[in-house]
Amino acid sequence: MEVALICSQPDRFLLGNRSKSSEFFISRCSSSSRGPIARKNCRIGRTRCGMASAMAGASANPSVSDVITKSRVSDELMPQIMSEALVWSSLHGLVVGDRNSQRSGTVPGVGMVHAPFALLPVSFPKDLWKQACELAPLFNDLVDRVSLDGKFLQESLSRTRGVDSFTSRLLEIHAKMMDLKKTEDVRLGLHRSDYMLDAETKKLYQIELNTISASFPGLGSLVSNLHRNLLNQYGENLGLDTKNIPENASLSRFAEALAKAWNEYNDSSGGRTVGVVYFRAGYSPDDYPTESEWRARLTMEQSSAIKCPSISYHLVGTKKIQQELAKPNVLERFLDNKDDMKKLRHCFAGLWSLDDSEILKQATEKPELFVLKPQREGGGNNIYGEDVRETLFKLQKEGNKGLDAFILMQRIFPASTPTHLVRDGVCRRDYTISELGIYGAYLRNKDRIIINEQSGYLMRTKASSSNEGGVAAGYAVLDSIYLS
Amino acid sequence: MEVALICSQPDRFLLGNRSKSSEFFISRCSSSSRGPIARKNCRIGRTRCGMASAMAGASANPSVSDVITKSRVSDELMPQIMSEALVWSSLHGLVVGDRNSQRSGTVPGVGMVHAPFALLPVSFPKDLWKQACELAPLFNDLVDRVSLDGKFLQESLSRTRGVDSFTSRLLEIHAKMMDLKKTEDVRLGLHRSDYMLDAETKKLYQIELNTISASFPGLGSLVSNLHRNLLNQYGENLGLDTKNIPENASLSRFAEALAKAWNEYNDSSGGRTVGVVYFRAGYSPDDYPTESEWRARLTMEQSSAIKCPSISYHLVGTKKIQQELAKPNVLERFLDNKDDMKKLRHCFAGLWSLDDSEILKQATEKPELFVLKPQREGGGNNIYGEDVRETLFKLQKEGNKGLDAFILMQRIFPASTPTHLVRDGVCRRDYTISELGIYGAYLRNKDRIIINEQSGYLMRTKASSSNEGGVAAGYAVLDSIYLS
Repeated sequence: MEVALICSQPDRFLLGNRSKSSEFFISRCSSSSRGPIARKNCRIGRTRCGMASAMAGASANPSVSDVITKSRVSDELMPQIMSEALVWSSLHGLVVGDRNSQRSGTVPGVGMVHAPFALLPVSFPKDLWKQACELAPLFNDLVDRVSLDGKFLQESLSRTRGVDSFTSRLLEIHAKMMDLKKTEDVRLGLHRSDYMLDAETKKLYQIELNTISASFPGLGSLVSNLHRNLLNQYGENLGLDTKNIPENASLSRFAEALAKAWNEYNDSSGGRTVGVVYFRAGYSPDDYPTESEWRARLTMEQSSAIKCPSISYHLVGTKKIQQELAKPNVLERFLDNKDDMKKLRHCFAGLWSLDDSEILKQATEKPELFVLKPQREGGGNNIYGEDVRETLFKLQKEGNKGLDAFILMQRIFPASTPTHLVRDGVCRRDYTISELGIYGAYLRNKDRIIINEQSGYLMRTKASSSNEGGVAAGYAVLDSIYLS
Repeated sequence: MEVALICSQPDRFLLGNRSKSSEFFISRCSSSSRGPIARKNCRIGRTRCGMASAMAGASANPSVSDVITKSRVSDELMPQIMSEALVWSSLHGLVVGDRNSQRSGTVPGVGMVHAPFALLPVSFPKDLWKQACELAPLFNDLVDRVSLDGKFLQESLSRTRGVDSFTSRLLEIHAKMMDLKKTEDVRLGLHRSDYMLDAETKKLYQIELNTISASFPGLGSLVSNLHRNLLNQYGENLGLDTKNIPENASLSRFAEALAKAWNEYNDSSGGRTVGVVYFRAGYSPDDYPTESEWRARLTMEQSSAIKCPSISYHLVGTKKIQQELAKPNVLERFLDNKDDMKKLRHCFAGLWSLDDSEILKQATEKPELFVLKPQREGGGNNIYGEDVRETLFKLQKEGNKGLDAFILMQRIFPASTPTHLVRDGVCRRDYTISELGIYGAYLRNKDRIIINEQSGYLMRTKASSSNEGGVAAGYAVLDSIYLS
């Protein structure tokens, strides 16, 4: 039994209520924007006015790609789900600035568009999901331990310093703090560890570990809620069950960690002291257009405020350190528990610095098996395929120094699945691959560990034909997972 | 003690969290879009880097207009409050379609802009607020009783029928239902009664009673939340206290009423029977471009579905019925309780049909004291000032029939107060007047009254210089109230 909403244009009120009352669902009787028209397949009251039955019943526990491949997302249901998803996004803040709008990004609250998303969550094996979650506290702990070893950071990055002026400036600040023997009693980490699932080996590989400005904990939570809401309404028709979308509290977990850090700082002197500094910028050279920004960064680092991240945490997140940690016997420097080390190593992909001539030879012969990664953060910088070969030739010709700005990584080949991608209000079906980000929050005050946990997740999905994966960069869409 | 957010552009994540943790507030250290810059008036950690104290302390319980007039919303604070309000709006669905965006309104989720709002709530006397709330169940009850008197509706509107083809079509459907002796056992009303506060008499006058498609219960709740959130953060600086903004649960109350109506319909036969029909359109001739829409309306009315509103409830909301009810001895036809009648009459403004030659004379002599109202719903149709005189002359010349399409109403003169109006991301200060809408929900099943309550409110505020007041029409902004 349904509730009909008669409206002449997309309505705000009723749709907004729906999520408040799970038993209560509304459908639109108007199929055009021109007024109320009785809808197919529904009866108004006990006066029959429509006909045909709903979708055929679904079989037990199919995967999402089964659902999409077997066209369970039928021509009739599709526009309903799309419209519902778009309205839900508008009402719940699943929005971003629209690049097509001139003022967007300069003034908040204008020129908004829904964030790009996958219409349905993507299937993901339950055991690998569990593995990824279990890794979160281990990586949190590892970051903290490595951050305390200033010498390791300085030495590992010493050659990067020569070729990457940005990392060099960070190292300068770090060195100054070492000279001052500055310690951070309260340490706060809000990280995201990214993984891909290799189709052939069915293994989970870590792509990178973000220790600064890990993006989308807010939108990530929302996309999971969006998918849960859609399956609440259409799950029966699709044969998909809401309960298979894991809880995603990234937004509140990170907020809670920040609030707890603020509590730990515990300055009751009043006034406008800053107790916690969160960096949503500062990871890219573009964020430091003048010396003034570098001075501000130094001031913050010198202060007693809790930095998220501190300069040490920031440096631990560089690709060079990721590659150093993957070397034999390096984890042993920081950890004692053999089981933990085994778990961590199990997700390490092949990682090499470019002073390894054997790997250079392999990469120039079979570039399709490698990704060439520069130190720079943010999507759009990685080098793939034929470009790997060409770049390596070029760097070798210019001399070894240029090689120090890059690392080589084994390329992971995730399985390609059909997905409905929604961007700018338009839905298109494409074959896609996905990358799972697991958020981790860590807070300690001296020896007291206050938080060390998995704190939600973010799935990003992009067309298989695209190498790059940035959501903001326009390549990927936000997604969530459906455990299978 | 604060949390600093270092960002190079308006950030989603942190701001989104703030409302989750009331003790936890964040300020931006970046005053430009170019990177982190240490902010005035704040210290980072225990390293001083800023200066001057926050705003001067505020005196006890000022009105909002005091705050604005005495420039407590200072030059420094203003952009902060603005930015916070705009970001909050984006994250909480306080958004509407942007008329400047081509695709907005055709596809949900694209071309969105924050809904126009007042930056701070408007002061409103506590006793009149209480009066308005107490009237809600009385009007709910009155609508229900009048709706059962088909003869009264047909007779009262008989002359309107001759001049207003739209009302005539509604009356036709109503007459058919009378012929069929159709009864509605379950009756659901979601109303909004609008009031203005007369500056001179300090009396609350009803402007109109909306029984169909009462707008903004969703956005109304959100604006109250926005204001509460702003006062949580800036109230101390402004000398305003969150607790003076009354709770506004219009969204959930209306949703609950719809859900309960759905329960009352109680059709467990399964399938896609529509148990409740909510009209978000259908109140304007534009919603019936062809005969097909009229047939749909009739089909729905004939069905056993619960209509919100039924054709009878719809007709009770016409201005003609409002004017009839204000006539001496008419309330007595429907109500027994003298005290209730007194309360209702106390808020009735002067209302006249145009067959009263004495009032016609007065209105042509002093048109500034009257509003000429046509039957048509929606903002932008009322006639004020010199136009009243001219229209009356014209109607009289054309013969009495044209006069039947209008009623005259005493014009209310609310006090003008300074307000910060925010539209399209731009804030401007203007002198404004406000109109208070009180939502009422009513649900009964035969003799059992399930809901009869005040269900939240909506304040709309517009520049004093403008006669019309539609938010969607671009004249007014959404607002909430601050009890004084």
